[in-house]
Amino acid sequence: MNFFKSIVAYDGTDFHGFQRQANGLRTVQSELEKALRSVGWSGNSLVAAGRTDAGVHARGQVIAFRMDWRAEDEDLIKALNANLPSDIAVWHVEKVVEDFHPRFSAIRRRYEYSVYLSSLRDPRKERYSWRVWPRPEDDRLDQVANAIVGVRDFAPFGQAPIEGGHTTREVTLAEWESSPGGLTFVIEANAFLYHMVRRLVAAAISIGQGKRELEYFKQLLSNPSERWQDSIAPPQGLSLEHVYYRD
Amino acid sequence: MNFFKSIVAYDGTDFHGFQRQANGLRTVQSELEKALRSVGWSGNSLVAAGRTDAGVHARGQVIAFRMDWRAEDEDLIKALNANLPSDIAVWHVEKVVEDFHPRFSAIRRRYEYSVYLSSLRDPRKERYSWRVWPRPEDDRLDQVANAIVGVRDFAPFGQAPIEGGHTTREVTLAEWESSPGGLTFVIEANAFLYHMVRRLVAAAISIGQGKRELEYFKQLLSNPSERWQDSIAPPQGLSLEHVYYRD
Repeated sequence: MNFFKSIVAYDGTDFHGFQRQANGLRTVQSELEKALRSVGWSGNSLVAAGRTDAGVHARGQVIAFRMDWRAEDEDLIKALNANLPSDIAVWHVEKVVEDFHPRFSAIRRRYEYSVYLSSLRDPRKERYSWRVWPRPEDDRLDQVANAIVGVRDFAPFGQAPIEGGHTTREVTLAEWESSPGGLTFVIEANAFLYHMVRRLVAAAISIGQGKRELEYFKQLLSNPSERWQDSIAPPQGLSLEHVYYRD
Repeated sequence: MNFFKSIVAYDGTDFHGFQRQANGLRTVQSELEKALRSVGWSGNSLVAAGRTDAGVHARGQVIAFRMDWRAEDEDLIKALNANLPSDIAVWHVEKVVEDFHPRFSAIRRRYEYSVYLSSLRDPRKERYSWRVWPRPEDDRLDQVANAIVGVRDFAPFGQAPIEGGHTTREVTLAEWESSPGGLTFVIEANAFLYHMVRRLVAAAISIGQGKRELEYFKQLLSNPSERWQDSIAPPQGLSLEHVYYRD
């Protein structure tokens, strides 16, 4: 038996999130397990780095599974892709040591959130980004990003994955990049709270548009006394881009 | 009554083409007419510049319709967008003279065809481009593009929209642009034959990959003795980008 680590990309639009569900709804995990079974896997459950929400995309999701495979790794990639629907693809496969765990071995994750700036809907951008108008001020967006970096209690901006779990995370990178007609928020942290990126993006846009106060945002980050009152950014702008491991 | 010209964008994936169909299938025209009716239009049929095929997109489709509208043009844009599904948007509306016709008044059309270059499927590019691998040679692609420009009989690469109609068209621009991980074929002509862009793109890729002869391609363009034997490029890479009118 070999133990495999694999990098997976998907368009999250038509999935009820990553995680397999008892009711048989279409999820990324269930489609991946179906493809794995068709190439000879007989496990019960694959293990993944993160459970992305419904509508959230990935270009760097990491999964692990154990199976007997005598051909080349490249052949396994081809065989899996031939058995996957067009909205999921396997980009990489490699044999790893038995104590590797996609979630627990991860030291850092990178998410990106895409925004497009327009007063009118663009049908071809709707699927992979959030339409925002009026244009937020770049300077304020940068100040929000700068305030996020560091070891902070993000309790006002998300929930711990485990009931009562701690809410402190270390953000090592947070910045806005410009693209033609749009903006991308790039964030890296050791781990993320549930809905944390989408709440931070919604907060940044509100502050950038002058609807909320930057000072209050900073204050909540240093003294997390209450939840940030703001809607959550929609899922389709978000993508899990990379999961980092120690060598 | 006012006569309106309007620019429309759509994601063609979930439509059975532009043109309304008797069987009630979902088409761009039928969705546009539904939205027009909900804002007070009582016509029988809108008129469009081009009938894009199933799966083909647009950022510059032009339609015309006649209706009584007393508010601002901007309000008509908002009202229409509020009544359209997320895969269609109206980007522009203006009053025009009665003898304007989206198709017959057009002097030039611009189409773009997107290709992405990868040995592996990218789920987020599948919807708006054609995956091509191995990478075609840039030099050969450019030579194909250069051979296309001019007044030529494109009979080997498409059919006249009307049975027995003439097949000569004037191509004023044909070039390949590079983008990160991909290529875009840009073509402008006074008019196009049915499937002409998708056939030319398939031919260019085959020649670029060394599967077909550039000389034979050129020969068919100067002496259209038979059809080019090649598959047609898939619809999702194609987009109607702009329709030009005299002032």
